[in-house]
Amino acid sequence: MSDCIFCKIVDGEIPANKVMEDEEFIAFHDIHPKAKVHVLVIPKKHIPTFMDIQEEDVALLGRLHLFIQKVTKELNMDEKGFRVINNCKDHGGQEVYHLHYHILGGEKLAF
Amino acid sequence: MSDCIFCKIVDGEIPANKVMEDEEFIAFHDIHPKAKVHVLVIPKKHIPTFMDIQEEDVALLGRLHLFIQKVTKELNMDEKGFRVINNCKDHGGQEVYHLHYHILGGEKLAF
Repeated sequence: MSDCIFCKIVDGEIPANKVMEDEEFIAFHDIHPKAKVHVLVIPKKHIPTFMDIQEEDVALLGRLHLFIQKVTKELNMDEKGFRVINNCKDHGGQEVYHLHYHILGGEKLAF
Repeated sequence: MSDCIFCKIVDGEIPANKVMEDEEFIAFHDIHPKAKVHVLVIPKKHIPTFMDIQEEDVALLGRLHLFIQKVTKELNMDEKGFRVINNCKDHGGQEVYHLHYHILGGEKLAF
């Protein structure tokens, strides 16, 4: 997707403050953090929204959970906890149409 | 888990206002809604927190995404969008230690 900024991060065309990366996912710090720690986790595959996840993506999205666990351990949030958020489309407040999960923590969060 | 209230909902010991149920998951309305629509989605399997998800649960958690898609279609939130939240442990504000995802929508949500 030539005009997707997260695909450009995947391709290295746009820099990002990466926490971790593997063959399928990248975690990087949000440039406008909404908590002491605010990281975005994306699949490298371009999936626009939560509603665009297909049957063929099930295993990928399952593995995303294990990747998020590794990211939270790296950031020392695994014991005290954190919040995982996916915003889908307009009502959810989705800003970039490449599936991403916000990981918030480093402090006790209000609901 | 004999003292887990979500396991009691799974077992039918505690009533819930269910939206949808299949072999693996249940969606039911939150009793203290924080948005016009506020549904909880749980796996029937007792997994305490996000950090307790194991390699063997990867396919289950992947399928959870497709189940959430069905729930949001049932509630007419699939086109305008919604938010999916998992609160993990103390910092995340987790209240019930049985893995659950909050689905919020029915209106445009603030971040």
